[in-house]
Amino acid sequence: MGVYGGIEAGGTKMVCAVGTAPDDIRAEGRFPTASPEESIPRAIRFFKDHTSAGELDAIGIAAFGPVDPDPRSPTWGYVTTTPKPGWAHTDFAGQIKRALDVPVGFDTDVNVAALGEHRWGAARGLHTFIYLTVGTGIGGGGMVEGRLLHGMMHPEMGHIRVPHDRNEDPFEGQCIYHGDCLEGLACGPALEERWGQPAETLPPEHAAWELEARYLALGVVNYTLTLAPQRVIMGGGVMNQTHLFPMIRKNVQSLLNDYLQVSQVTSDLKHFVVPPELGARAGVLGAIALAEQAALTHL
Amino acid sequence: MGVYGGIEAGGTKMVCAVGTAPDDIRAEGRFPTASPEESIPRAIRFFKDHTSAGELDAIGIAAFGPVDPDPRSPTWGYVTTTPKPGWAHTDFAGQIKRALDVPVGFDTDVNVAALGEHRWGAARGLHTFIYLTVGTGIGGGGMVEGRLLHGMMHPEMGHIRVPHDRNEDPFEGQCIYHGDCLEGLACGPALEERWGQPAETLPPEHAAWELEARYLALGVVNYTLTLAPQRVIMGGGVMNQTHLFPMIRKNVQSLLNDYLQVSQVTSDLKHFVVPPELGARAGVLGAIALAEQAALTHL
Repeated sequence: MGVYGGIEAGGTKMVCAVGTAPDDIRAEGRFPTASPEESIPRAIRFFKDHTSAGELDAIGIAAFGPVDPDPRSPTWGYVTTTPKPGWAHTDFAGQIKRALDVPVGFDTDVNVAALGEHRWGAARGLHTFIYLTVGTGIGGGGMVEGRLLHGMMHPEMGHIRVPHDRNEDPFEGQCIYHGDCLEGLACGPALEERWGQPAETLPPEHAAWELEARYLALGVVNYTLTLAPQRVIMGGGVMNQTHLFPMIRKNVQSLLNDYLQVSQVTSDLKHFVVPPELGARAGVLGAIALAEQAALTHL
Repeated sequence: MGVYGGIEAGGTKMVCAVGTAPDDIRAEGRFPTASPEESIPRAIRFFKDHTSAGELDAIGIAAFGPVDPDPRSPTWGYVTTTPKPGWAHTDFAGQIKRALDVPVGFDTDVNVAALGEHRWGAARGLHTFIYLTVGTGIGGGGMVEGRLLHGMMHPEMGHIRVPHDRNEDPFEGQCIYHGDCLEGLACGPALEERWGQPAETLPPEHAAWELEARYLALGVVNYTLTLAPQRVIMGGGVMNQTHLFPMIRKNVQSLLNDYLQVSQVTSDLKHFVVPPELGARAGVLGAIALAEQAALTHL
């Protein structure tokens, strides 16, 4: 049996790993996400340096978006319309595949993190769940009936519209497309802009967190009513404020108001809204899981 | 080859049909949805009267909810917590199955209508789409990657929260659980309560419709960002006001504000937000399609 390679390509850094499972990571490297001309060859070099000839069975790529993850599309594996300099319309997966000559799996960062949680973390044994990340932006992915969410392109959950009481919260929202969509009201930079200081410097008793928990709960409730997930996993930098979890659960419960008569949300919210078990490693481990899938698909 | 039976059980009437396709319906009957003790035997009698011995291959049931459509559950095929007198915790599918001794498919009315549209209507060839009904309530179903949406129980899309400007629309909403959720603001009875007359008597130029189109577009946008459907099919009594379609599309476009760079929503909204091709027959024809699936599954 060989090994898998995983690439987690975020907006600021890339993490590469070689291994087969969370307890069998044989090499790991991280470097800044520079131009594609610099970063993609660097990733290729990493895998050549850290595997012997024929040892690498497949690669999984978790990419910042928007991307084209549709295997039926001619631009499968591309980063598409990103504002990130140099990366728009880049054939990311194709370059990796041609250089390393192995099957390549390619998906959004959130879907790959979701896959990682499904393989080894908080979504083991579930068929329908959501993975949200709340950080620089708000993104969502997940599975429905065992399949990663794709659809027309891929979800952009962070941009849903939610109630915004301007008397209570006069902040206009900071999404350049939608103003006060969920991301515009509740991502990390929105917190910083509204309160005039970085989110992580706001003490747990600050009113910012009650408001944040309410917005995030509105998101959880809307996604839950739309997809009926068995669990909602919430990761990302903002969710490192772990005191948010009980506050979000309380708001989810009061917003649903006993409408959904299923034990997951009536009595067991502690297991319904949860942090990722793989923590910050969900992305790169998910990429390993995606490689494993790619290898199986191409047998 | 035999025939399939379909049951569309709505809150007020039941429609039963025998056939194999929209152009091959060999018998159809409709009667009020009374108590289960009266209505279920009546449906059974219909199929016995309209098929010869051994001819019936399977039955599909589209049921008003909430229901349990999970084949892994001990209460599969039950209508569960409905307020409809006599129907709470009724083993609907089981009674049909025992009496007719054929495979039985069972799902929510909206999922079954979605299946009908997938088999013979506006969702042919799609893998991910949403079917919404806007009438006495607002409900949603659909498919993700070729599978009907189920999840933890089934979606309750009508109850998502959307922005509600009380200066512009002081109506409080009429959902007994959530007040001004989407259903509470935009279902047929909400229109009637807000404007003091039945929705269908409001002329097309009435301000009611612009507001209605805006709320429904907020729903379409939130579902689209969450599930990335290839198409959103909108049926139900309120959508018989066909002038709503262009108004909803215009609002969807301005709410998305060029964020999603896919042709479906940038240039081709006319084919993205559409009425059901099977019209009011989506439910009973979907039940025939569900029976067809049940027969195939049990081969």
